[in-house]
This record gives sequence, C-alpha cells and structure tokens, in this order.
Amino acid sequence: MTDRVYLLERYDDVRRYTEQLAAPLSAEDQTVQSMPDVSPTKWHRAHVTWFFETFVLASNEAGFTPFQDTYWFLFNSYYEAVGPRYARAMRGVISRPGAHDVGGYRHNVDARMRELLTRVDEDTLTKIAGTIELGFHHEQQHQELLLMDIKHALSLNPLQPTYAGGLIGGDADRLGWKEYNGGLVEVGHESASDGPFCFDNELPRHQAWLPPYRLADRLITNGEWLEFMADGGYARSELWLSDGWSRIAADGWDSPLYWALQDGVWMEHTLAGTHPIDENLPVCHISHYEADAYARWASKRLPTEAEWEHAARFEKVVAANLADDQTWHARAAGAANGSLRQLFGDCWEWTSSAYLPYPGFQPATGAIGEYNGKFMSNQMVLRGGCAFTPTGHARSSYRNFYPPSARWPLTGVRLADDG
Amino acid sequence: MTDRVYLLERYDDVRRYTEQLAAPLSAEDQTVQSMPDVSPTKWHRAHVTWFFETFVLASNEAGFTPFQDTYWFLFNSYYEAVGPRYARAMRGVISRPGAHDVGGYRHNVDARMRELLTRVDEDTLTKIAGTIELGFHHEQQHQELLLMDIKHALSLNPLQPTYAGGLIGGDADRLGWKEYNGGLVEVGHESASDGPFCFDNELPRHQAWLPPYRLADRLITNGEWLEFMADGGYARSELWLSDGWSRIAADGWDSPLYWALQDGVWMEHTLAGTHPIDENLPVCHISHYEADAYARWASKRLPTEAEWEHAARFEKVVAANLADDQTWHARAAGAANGSLRQLFGDCWEWTSSAYLPYPGFQPATGAIGEYNGKFMSNQMVLRGGCAFTPTGHARSSYRNFYPPSARWPLTGVRLADDG
Amino acid sequence: MTDRVYLLERYDDVRRYTEQLAAPLSAEDQTVQSMPDVSPTKWHRAHVTWFFETFVLASNEAGFTPFQDTYWFLFNSYYEAVGPRYARAMRGVISRPGAHDVGGYRHNVDARMRELLTRVDEDTLTKIAGTIELGFHHEQQHQELLLMDIKHALSLNPLQPTYAGGLIGGDADRLGWKEYNGGLVEVGHESASDGPFCFDNELPRHQAWLPPYRLADRLITNGEWLEFMADGGYARSELWLSDGWSRIAADGWDSPLYWALQDGVWMEHTLAGTHPIDENLPVCHISHYEADAYARWASKRLPTEAEWEHAARFEKVVAANLADDQTWHARAAGAANGSLRQLFGDCWEWTSSAYLPYPGFQPATGAIGEYNGKFMSNQMVLRGGCAFTPTGHARSSYRNFYPPSARWPLTGVRLADDG
Amino acid sequence: MTDRVYLLERYDDVRRYTEQLAAPLSAEDQTVQSMPDVSPTKWHRAHVTWFFETFVLASNEAGFTPFQDTYWFLFNSYYEAVGPRYARAMRGVISRPGAHDVGGYRHNVDARMRELLTRVDEDTLTKIAGTIELGFHHEQQHQELLLMDIKHALSLNPLQPTYAGGLIGGDADRLGWKEYNGGLVEVGHESASDGPFCFDNELPRHQAWLPPYRLADRLITNGEWLEFMADGGYARSELWLSDGWSRIAADGWDSPLYWALQDGVWMEHTLAGTHPIDENLPVCHISHYEADAYARWASKRLPTEAEWEHAARFEKVVAANLADDQTWHARAAGAANGSLRQLFGDCWEWTSSAYLPYPGFQPATGAIGEYNGKFMSNQMVLRGGCAFTPTGHARSSYRNFYPPSARWPLTGVRLADDG
Repeated sequence: MTDRVYLLERYDDVRRYTEQLAAPLSAEDQTVQSMPDVSPTKWHRAHVTWFFETFVLASNEAGFTPFQDTYWFLFNSYYEAVGPRYARAMRGVISRPGAHDVGGYRHNVDARMRELLTRVDEDTLTKIAGTIELGFHHEQQHQELLLMDIKHALSLNPLQPTYAGGLIGGDADRLGWKEYNGGLVEVGHESASDGPFCFDNELPRHQAWLPPYRLADRLITNGEWLEFMADGGYARSELWLSDGWSRIAADGWDSPLYWALQDGVWMEHTLAGTHPIDENLPVCHISHYEADAYARWASKRLPTEAEWEHAARFEKVVAANLADDQTWHARAAGAANGSLRQLFGDCWEWTSSAYLPYPGFQPATGAIGEYNGKFMSNQMVLRGGCAFTPTGHARSSYRNFYPPSARWPLTGVRLADDG
Repeated sequence: MTDRVYLLERYDDVRRYTEQLAAPLSAEDQTVQSMPDVSPTKWHRAHVTWFFETFVLASNEAGFTPFQDTYWFLFNSYYEAVGPRYARAMRGVISRPGAHDVGGYRHNVDARMRELLTRVDEDTLTKIAGTIELGFHHEQQHQELLLMDIKHALSLNPLQPTYAGGLIGGDADRLGWKEYNGGLVEVGHESASDGPFCFDNELPRHQAWLPPYRLADRLITNGEWLEFMADGGYARSELWLSDGWSRIAADGWDSPLYWALQDGVWMEHTLAGTHPIDENLPVCHISHYEADAYARWASKRLPTEAEWEHAARFEKVVAANLADDQTWHARAAGAANGSLRQLFGDCWEWTSSAYLPYPGFQPATGAIGEYNGKFMSNQMVLRGGCAFTPTGHARSSYRNFYPPSARWPLTGVRLADDG
Repeated sequence: MTDRVYLLERYDDVRRYTEQLAAPLSAEDQTVQSMPDVSPTKWHRAHVTWFFETFVLASNEAGFTPFQDTYWFLFNSYYEAVGPRYARAMRGVISRPGAHDVGGYRHNVDARMRELLTRVDEDTLTKIAGTIELGFHHEQQHQELLLMDIKHALSLNPLQPTYAGGLIGGDADRLGWKEYNGGLVEVGHESASDGPFCFDNELPRHQAWLPPYRLADRLITNGEWLEFMADGGYARSELWLSDGWSRIAADGWDSPLYWALQDGVWMEHTLAGTHPIDENLPVCHISHYEADAYARWASKRLPTEAEWEHAARFEKVVAANLADDQTWHARAAGAANGSLRQLFGDCWEWTSSAYLPYPGFQPATGAIGEYNGKFMSNQMVLRGGCAFTPTGHARSSYRNFYPPSARWPLTGVRLADDG
Repeated sequence: MTDRVYLLERYDDVRRYTEQLAAPLSAEDQTVQSMPDVSPTKWHRAHVTWFFETFVLASNEAGFTPFQDTYWFLFNSYYEAVGPRYARAMRGVISRPGAHDVGGYRHNVDARMRELLTRVDEDTLTKIAGTIELGFHHEQQHQELLLMDIKHALSLNPLQPTYAGGLIGGDADRLGWKEYNGGLVEVGHESASDGPFCFDNELPRHQAWLPPYRLADRLITNGEWLEFMADGGYARSELWLSDGWSRIAADGWDSPLYWALQDGVWMEHTLAGTHPIDENLPVCHISHYEADAYARWASKRLPTEAEWEHAARFEKVVAANLADDQTWHARAAGAANGSLRQLFGDCWEWTSSAYLPYPGFQPATGAIGEYNGKFMSNQMVLRGGCAFTPTGHARSSYRNFYPPSARWPLTGVRLADDG
C-alpha cells in the first residue's frame, strides 16, 4: 500500500526546502542568467513546480486547467514531447512572472497537489506515486543547481556579494590509498520497482569486469593543485587531452574557476564570500580536462565509474558534507580513518567514464523518458555528491553527468591507480 | 550671472522624471537586458547618477569620495578616460545593486548635488553650470532610452506585459508636400556659450548648399507600409541596399520590429500592450535599410539632415507628441495644416546622412569629449524626436544617430524628393 | 633480425600508393580545403612525408638538415612536442609549396629514407623499425583521409566533378542475425612488440564482460534508410540524442550527407559522380547521432566496440571491399552466407562506445605519444574499415574514432541487439 | 559614330593585361581565397569574362548559349537580378574550372566578343558601346583587386613568396601644404553620355559649399607612422573612433597590416617580398580608423571627398605611380614641386566622407544598376588610385569605397586642415 502520509510530508519538506534556499536571494538575484548553462533562481522555482503540474496534475486532477497557459511554455526545460519551449539562453530576459509571482504559482500547485494526495483513490495513488517520487528527486537536483547557478551569477558581480555561510578550515591528512581486488562485480542500482528510489540511468544492475585497482582515500587539495600549477600544469601540452588544451588557448584557463590572483594572493569566490585559498580544502570547480591533466601529472588516473561504485558500496553516507550542513563549500578531509573520506558530499568527483547507457537500459515511456537517456552523449560521469547536494540525495549508484569542459558545477578530483 | 535657482529646480525636475518613468517597472523588469544594445532600467537610473557624481561632484565636492568604488566601474558607459568599465553586454548579470539600492544611490547623489548647488560660490557655479546642464540633457536621453529598452525586453516575454498608456487612433490625412528653394543655407545650432543648450555635435553652425527639394508633410503610415509589404517590399532585392538585403536573409525580416501575424491579423507590440495594426498610425521601429527601401519603392528618397533642419527652422515645437503626452506611441497625423505634421515627436526620422562631424567640429576637452564625437562612424542621423522624448529635449538642430540596422529605437519615415 | 628488404619494399609500396591516389587530382583540386575538418590533398602528401623526416630522419640521418625549415611548421598536424604549427583551418590558404613542389619534397625524403634503410647498421635498424612501420600505417590512414576529404571538396562544386570509378550495384539479401554468448572475453590486440602491427590505442589486451548479444549480418541499406525517413525519422525528437536533435535544428539535416533531392529523386554524390540512390547499397555518410536514431527507430541498438571485436575475431578479412577494389564506394551485401557480411570494408561502423583508453593504456613516449591518446574525449569508436581503407589496414582490433557529429567519413550502420 | 576599331583594340588590351597580371601565379596561387573579402585569381579572371558574356553577349549574340550553365552561377559576383550565385566566402573551395580551364573560357568569350564587335550593325554597336566600355573599366577594377587579393593570400604563407618587382626607395621631402579658398564648387564628373567614361556614382555633377582648407602635398610616410606608434598611437583611446578602438581590442592591431616585428626590426610584406620598413615610403594598408586616428594625433583631419576632388581638378595624372610602372608598391614622394605629390597612384587616400549617393543620383536600369548604388552604406570614400591601379583608370572624380575597417586594399593617408 502506498504511503499517503509519507508522500504528503515528503512533498512539503522538499518544496519548503527550495524556498528556504531561495530566501536569501533578492528579486533581482533570482532574475539573472549569467550564461546559457545556468538558469535564474526563479526559473528553477517555477520549473520544478511545472514538473508536478505537468506530469502529475495534468492527467490526474479533475477538470485540470493550467495555472497559466504561458507557464507551460516558459517553464518547460527540455521535454520535446510536452511541446515547444522558451529558448534556454533567454531565460534571463523573462522579468515576469517575478519572484513573488512564482511564489504564487508554487502556492497554487502545492494546494492542488495536497488536495490530490489527500483525496485521490488508492489505486491511482499507487499508479502515480513513482512520478511524484521522481518529482521530489527532480526538485532536489534543481536545489543543487540553484546553488551552483547563483554562485556563478554572483561571481561576476564586482560587488562580491555573498549568499550565506562561512568556510570551515581544518586539516587534510596525507593522502592514502585503498586497494580493491576487482573481478566480476555488480554495477547499478538494485531495483526500481520497490525499495529506495533511483533514476532510470542507474539501471539495470549488471555485471562488469574490474582489474585490481586502488582509490585515493580523499580528494585532491588546493595545496596539491598549487603544486601542479607551480610545475607548469596549465602550460604543458603533454598533460592534456587535445580538447582540453584547446580550451586553455581559447578561454585562458590558468587556475580553477573562481580563483583570482589579487596582489600576489590566490583568492577564491565562494557562496560565503571571497577568501584566500586554504591549502587544506579540496580543489573545486575544475573541469574534467583539468582533473584528467592533474591525474596524468601525478602519474595516476581518474577512477572509472564502476570502480568508484564498487568501492562506494562498502561505505556509509554519514557525516558527509551535504547541503544540510550549510557549509556551502567543500571541507577539509580531516584525519585518515580507513574509509574513503569525502566520498558522499564536498565535491562531485569526475570519473574517466563517458556517460553512456548501461547494458539493457530502457528509458521510461512518454515525456518522462527524456529525463536522462537523451543526454548520453559528450558528457562524463561524476559520482558522490557535493556540499550543495540535499541530504538523502546521495547514494553509491547515483550517476551525475556534465560536459568535460564544465567548471561551474561543484566538482573535485579523487585519484585512482591500477592495483 | 548663472541662475542658481534654475539649476536647483531643473535638477529636481529631471531627476524626478526618471524615477517617475521607472515607477511602473518591477525590480525584475529593471534588471533584465534583452540584447547587448539595450540596458537594464536600473542601470540607466544608476548611470545618469554616476554622470553627476563623476563629472560634477568628483572635482567640486570638498573631500569627495565615491558613494561606492565599485559603482565607478559598474556604471561607466563608455568613457575610456574615466577608467575601465563593466562589459556592456553583461549588464543584465548584475543583480546588485538592486533597484532599491539604486534608489539609495540616487538619493545620496541628489542630496550632495543640492548641497553643492546651494553652497558653491558664484564663480565655480558659472564654471560648472555647462556640465550640469549637459547632465540634464544626458539624463533626458537616457529617459528616452529607458523606454525604448524596456519595450524591447517586454516584447520578448510571452506573457505580453504592458508598461502603461493606451494607443490613440485618429485620421492620417493624405500625404502632402512642402517645397523648399534651398541655396546656401545655415546648418547647426546657433551657439553653445550662451543661449539655449545644444550638444557639441550640433556645432559649429556652418553653410551648406542645398538644391531645391520637397518634404512630405507627414510620416508614412502603417497602411502605406502594408502596401509596400503587399507589393513584395521585403522580397525584391532591387529595392535594398546590399547590407540591408543581407540582414533580411540573416534575420528573416519581413515586417517592422514588434509586428507579428496572429491568425491572419498583423499585431503590434507597444508599451500599452499588443494591438491590431492601426493603418492610420505611423509605421514605427523600422531600420534605416527599411526606410531607404520604402523610399526607393515609392520613387522618392529620404531627406538629408541639412534639408530636414533647414525646413524645421520654420516650424514650431508645439503640440508635438512627446513623452509628456504619455501616449507612449506615435499618433495619427490628423488634418493637413500647411506645416510639417509630426515633425517634433511621434517617431525619430531617418535621414540619408551619415553621422559625421560638421566642418570645424571640436569635441569638448577631457572625458566629456567622448560624449558624441567618437561615435561618428557607421551610423545614420535621425531628426525630430519621438513619443518617448522628454518635452524640451526636441529642437531643429538635434542630431540623433543609430546604426542603419537598428530597429528598437522608435523610428519612422518621412519622404523627400528633388524640387 | 629486422627485415631490411621488407622495410625497403614496403616503404616504396606505401609511398607509391599515395601518389597513385593523388594522380587524378589537378593542382587546384589538391589545394582546396572545404572545411576545417578536412585537409588539402597536397597537404596530406606533404604531411606523411614530414612524418618520416621528423620521426625517422631527424634523429638518424648523419648531418641532418630539414628539406625546408618552413615545412617543419607547415606540415606538422598536431604534435605539440615538435613545435608550433600552421593553423589547421588555414591549410587551404597555402598555395606554395604547390602540388609539384610537394612531389619534390617526397622525392627528396624518399631518397634519403632509402639511403638510410640501405646503409644503417643492424642495431639502429632494429631500434627504428617500429617507428618506420608506424609511418607506413600513418600514411595509410592519410590515404583514406585524402579520399574522404577530396570527396567533400568535390561535393561542393556545382560542376559535379568525379574522381574515378563507378558504382557497383547488386542485391542486399535480407538482414539476418548472428548470436554470441558473450561472457568474459578478451579485447585488444595481442601484442605490439612482435607479430603484426597495431596502434597503441588497441592495447593492452584485457578482459571484458559481455552479456549475450546479437549482431546484424549486414549493413543497413539506403532502402531501409528511406523507410526511416518516410516514417519521420528526422522529425521525431524521441528518436534522438539531445545533441543530435540540436544538430538537426542548427544544420537542417534531413538525409545523409551527399544526398540531394532533385526533381523528386534522391541523388547521391560519390567519387564516381552523382547518381540516383540505389536501395541495395549501404547507407553512407551518416553521423553517430543518425546511426543511433535509426537503431532506436528499429527498436535495436548499436554494438559496443567489445561486442564488435569479439564477433570479428571469428571472421576473415577476405573479399572485403577496400581501396584495392577501386570501387570507391560501399557495395551491396550480396547473399547471406553465415558470416558477418561487409564487416571489413564498405563503411566504418559506428559503435555505442565512447573512445576511451583501455585499462592500463600507456601512450608511447615522446611526440609519438600524441598519436592517439590525446584525442580520447568527445569521440565515438568506429570499427571495420571502408571502401577507402588501404588493403592490409583493416583488422578486428582496429579502433577508428570520430566526433559523433562527423558525416564526411565513409560511415555506415550495423545493428545489434541483446541476446 | 561609335569607334569600332577603338573598341576592338581596347578590348584586346584590357583582356590581355589581366592575363599578364595572372601570369606569375601558379594554378595553386590562383585557387586560394585567404578571407571572405578577397577572391581567387582565377575567379577574377572568370568573373570579368562572365560580365561580357552576361551583359553583352547574352542579349546581342545570335543563338546565344552560355559557355557553361554552371559558370553563370559560379562567376556572378553580386548581381541579384541575374539569378542565384555561389556563396562568396566559398570561392576558395571551387577547384574546377582550374586556372587552365578559365583560360579556355576567356578564349571562347574573347573570340565571340571579337566576332560581335566586328560584325554587329552600327546601331546596335552604338547601343551596346556603353556597356562594353563599362566592361573595360570593370575588368580594370578587378585587375587592381586581383593584386590586392593575391598580396593578402601570399602574406599568410610562411614561405614568404614574392609576386614580382622590387621596392624603389628615395627621399620623401618634408611635408608641405597647399591652400584652397573653397566656396561654391562643382563636384562630380562632367557627363556620362559623351566624353570620357565615368561610373554612375560619379554623377550627377553638382554644387557643394567648401570653407577654405589646406591639403598636405604628399602622403604620410612610414617614418611618420613610426612616430605615431612610438607615441602610443595604438594605445590611446582618445585618438580613436569607438568602432576603431573596438577593432584594436578584438584584432590586436598594433601596426599597419603586413608589418611584423622580427628581431627588433619592423618588416613589411610586399608583392616584391618582405623587406625592412623604409621610412621614406608612404605608410600603406591602414584602415580608415587608423588614418583618422593618425590625423587626430597630428591635430589635423582627413579631407572630405569634395575637398580632394576640387583640389585634384587642377592636377595632372602624369608620372603617377600606377600599375604600368610595375613597382607594385607605393614610392617615395621625391622633392616638393608645388603640386600635390602622389595624388594619382601610390595609395588610395581615405577621405572623411561616407560613401553616399550624390544629390540626384540615378543608378543605371537593370542588373547593371547594382554596380555601385547598393553599396552606399557603411563604407568610406577613397580617392586617387594606387600602385595597383591600371593606367588610365585614375581620374579626379573617381570614387573608390571600402568599409572603414578594411586594411587589405592599398591605402594611405593624406592630411587636410581648415584653411
């Protein structure tokens, strides 16, 4: 029997958390789009609402009419099957609905969703529970994106505005290694139909062959990255994939995103303001190309996603530095403790695996099938989670993905090596 | 003796009017930049304030410190001599200072300007009166731009928001012609040092030789433009300058900006909402290329700026449809009355003259010299004024200018012919 | 003992074949570069010569001096370690050295290479034999590219020039399937140190786990592709990866490259001229996105490179339609015969595998190490060979690679399915 | 009576001269297009032939059929009325017809033109003589362009190939000034119907009012330009038009086109090879923006086209450094001699006048009307001629024009000042 009470409570929790994250941001902050890859805060707030309206209410609410016809068009992200949509790169031009109006939209849909969840018959509830659960996780993804995106927008403002929080220093104990035998292992989430939620791209569970390997027990630090830079890391073509080297020439990369040299000191923009680099903190906001070049410089490599997942199976998602901690930045690794430190949280970890379908992958039917599958091209898999990831949203089978040139996500580097 | 009372009163009037124009716009409206050519409302409000702070207060206020160092950088438009500035195309990314904060900036500078204007000694007042007067006219230019720019931003919003006002219909009497003998005429403003204000680009007054010519006594109407369209106006290469024809291919122009065909009816976006085309109203928002093609189609031509100015000398700036009318759009011409109808107001009128220095032109010294002169390249002169032009800002010697491809200014067409 | 006679004879054979391929092309044909991805014929002829001069003669010829200092710069393709190089996209601007001068360069290097191969001592010969062998295979790759590239250049010429050859029709027997059990299989070339040649990217041989699978026994035909088109293949977003769908919008893809509808008939540009589509011939010049969309439409998928290689191990490279056949186009499949038809030759076959390093991959040291490894990003693996591939250059472990949007290589589709 | 013998002889002379100019260029040289603004040599050779075929033979030859249908499409430059045409930026992709084939095309059209000129009746000859004369001047324009264009192509080749000729040094006597009273002057060519040839854009002759002015009696030299550079000419925003300043930022201009600093010495690429800068030679290949900035730096200005033409009326086109001299570069001014030195020849001289129609301008009817008029937008007028201009093609009323950013034409600077 589907747990109606769970759905109602969870719905409120997830929805409230989005508003909590947006609360420190002014109407103007919520409006800007600082590059085509990112979206305005109020667009995120509206789009996740649109998701429930489109995929739950539209087919289950008696006498459904959209809150606003135009919202249907404005707040569709990429679902071709739902109809045309407003150009992504132009989201920053839409001043109305304003931040307050979006609040009204959220309020309206929330009331209708609660009504539906309260009154719908048991059979229908069972039928739609999966989509509603997907809506929760969808909204959590956008909570993370909201933070990544506003960090980028604020970074371009010479007033150096802050969002919230304060950096937490601490020691990064020396980097150790954990060994794994590999062999024929299982990869992928256990099941979608019952048990805990997963996205379709984590399925089906399947076998993969792993040679013996080792994983670093913590992320690479800013201090280690400064050594890479001092050794000509950004100037030595032999360390770089060709596409990465072209980016260096085109975009002038000479340090991670959000780093700037001021009066001889490397400073880093964070949601908590701009601070001098702390050498013990993990390096953040590097592209796959940079992570890969660093690994080559260190005579190591990045892990495959199967290696990462196999190792993560044995680790617990506890004390991870996720959004609930309200650090809003990666923390120092602390003392070595035998487990893989910083595994769930702090920084999404680049793998060496291209984002491709698992053997036997089947996207969901209908528009929801566009959720993941159609992006399996020109992207790399990241694993773990980051300081912006809502608690409960990190798990060992989770496959995050970005183009190898992306630097605005909160990313980091964990090294691997052959066993 | 410089009129201290005039300056104080005029300062308040001009500054208040900017705020009045911005009042109907939300914080979000004031934040967006819909294309690189336009600027956010709150940027306009801040930039005109920066002008007084930079060019008046900085060198005349005892113990001057800028309101905010960063504003110096953010709200410089194009004055190289003042220092580096924030990239124009990125103005829409700056969420802070917000609309309310900009109000605070304005309040602060206003208080200091009033203080200065009240207490400064007579000699200094005389010395700075010209720059202050320039600041008034500068702010008026931005009042007009503020309206053109927000019109563009709102036009891209599928919610079709309105700003204010309502269209005013009426008759456009048949187009008549006025004859001029030409000969050796005077062009340019009379003088800058005393008498009414003018910009440096209206000087020096000089002689020009005009053959006999005729001017149409009103603007071209939407109805006449529809005839041009019906006759294949946008599809016949022989009517177009080569650069204009390339634009048609590149941008798909097939009607004026802000026109859209909905269910077989041509609709026009205005600040007062989206309405069906009124055939009696002047055609608006056409580029120089379109104006020129229309004239060729009609076997006529556009006037030179000297022809326009010579004819305008004999006309009065009364009953012109300027901003005070709060029509926010061009009006119908009404009955022919022997004078040039719609001359000052309604639409800026494209001329066939490139924007070049008058013989003997000398820009002002210092950063203020960048005001006009450095833009004398790749632009065409427009004359008259438009429904967004503040009253008192239109005069016969005024030289407005835009690139020939610009369509977001409120432009129109007055035909000319050889005499 | 290294076979000196083999090297001398093989050198002559490979070098002569390049000139044979270029012979039908005029000096002007050899000069043009029709897009940045392709290179002029005379550039190919010079670059492969530069390869021997740079990687063999420079370090082994007594008193070496380059034939021309500037050639060092002009004919470096992408070897950062060798020094700066002429911009790739500008190769079509280099009129000199002319086609005839390049012949002189080739003649000079050939003489010096023969001298070296004849006189060098046995130890040195053993040491450099690997690089020389690499030079042979390198030149063969450029022989294939030379044909792909000139095909593109000629396709843009409204005179519809031909290169050589004539299409060969024939039946394409119905598509059958071969079954494979999978399991823990070996992937990669056996060895690099002795035995037949392979590139570094085919190493090391390693284990991979394959679920049971099936492979189509021939390529998809033009007739089958026309069915896909008739069923709205290019207009149904649900069939496409997101990046592919964006390409359709941006570039207007509605059929394979080199297809054009003339008077209701689909025509295809080939090296042998422009002909009506033959429904029995394999579809050619489709991107990975198109191959993937076709497979989804057919409720099948593309093979992984491991599946392809495992199956190809059991097949012989005989009667393959490679360059020696001088068909210069893919042929019909002919009768089903129990083996995988069209496997080596006809069209390079897109796989679903991203081009990534094999576990334990080690690029060669020095500049030669840039040969393959640095391109392992944003590309997909293709397997088999094509009608432009020199005979002797196709093998089951060969990993070709192109960006998923590439259409000018001679590509085709072989379907796969779960077992 | 139209002079049949003149037309026949002149036809041969003009046509032969084109071939003479192309003779030093290889088939490959004649094929390349180094940027969209320029065209391949063989395209020029074919296009001027197409002009005679299209505008003379097509309507006057009995049983006319085009030499090749496709040439109609390939060798149309910009005549919309003649039909579609091959994309300008892709002219370098067209390897066929080759240089030799273009010779065949020329031979064929020449034979047919001679036949026509010999046999056509007197009335028809009179009727078409104007178009044929236009064809002569059209071909001469392309002779000049052919040289400008191949100079650009060769400049990008690191082999530093030469075309022909050798620089001629000499003294540049000190810069003097000539005074003019101005007043109501006549501008434009005397007449088109009889008397010497002119283009339609030189008409009609009309009156213009000129204040008193002065013109420099020679061009600005390299030595003077080096002083401008040494004084921060390219780094001082106050010297530049805004569009020019943007170009400096975008394209990194820090010296004239074709200048390069090698081991501390400024070198200049010419058709006669690359040589150290000769301080006595005129500065060449500068944009209008640079010419304008130089004039501002020197506290002078550029002449208007009316000033230039009025002054040139009194000068003779003798001893001018035009193409017949085969210098292929501007020469030193030599001793002051009371006249305007270097007026016709050496370098096209930028004026401060935008390229606009003269009062009463009427383009020719039909496709020929596209020759000049449609380009009257975003271009500046140049006067005089240059070392590439065919002798007989320079006259005081000639209006050449280029965009203000163009640097590949052979341009220079003559200063003006108020009288």
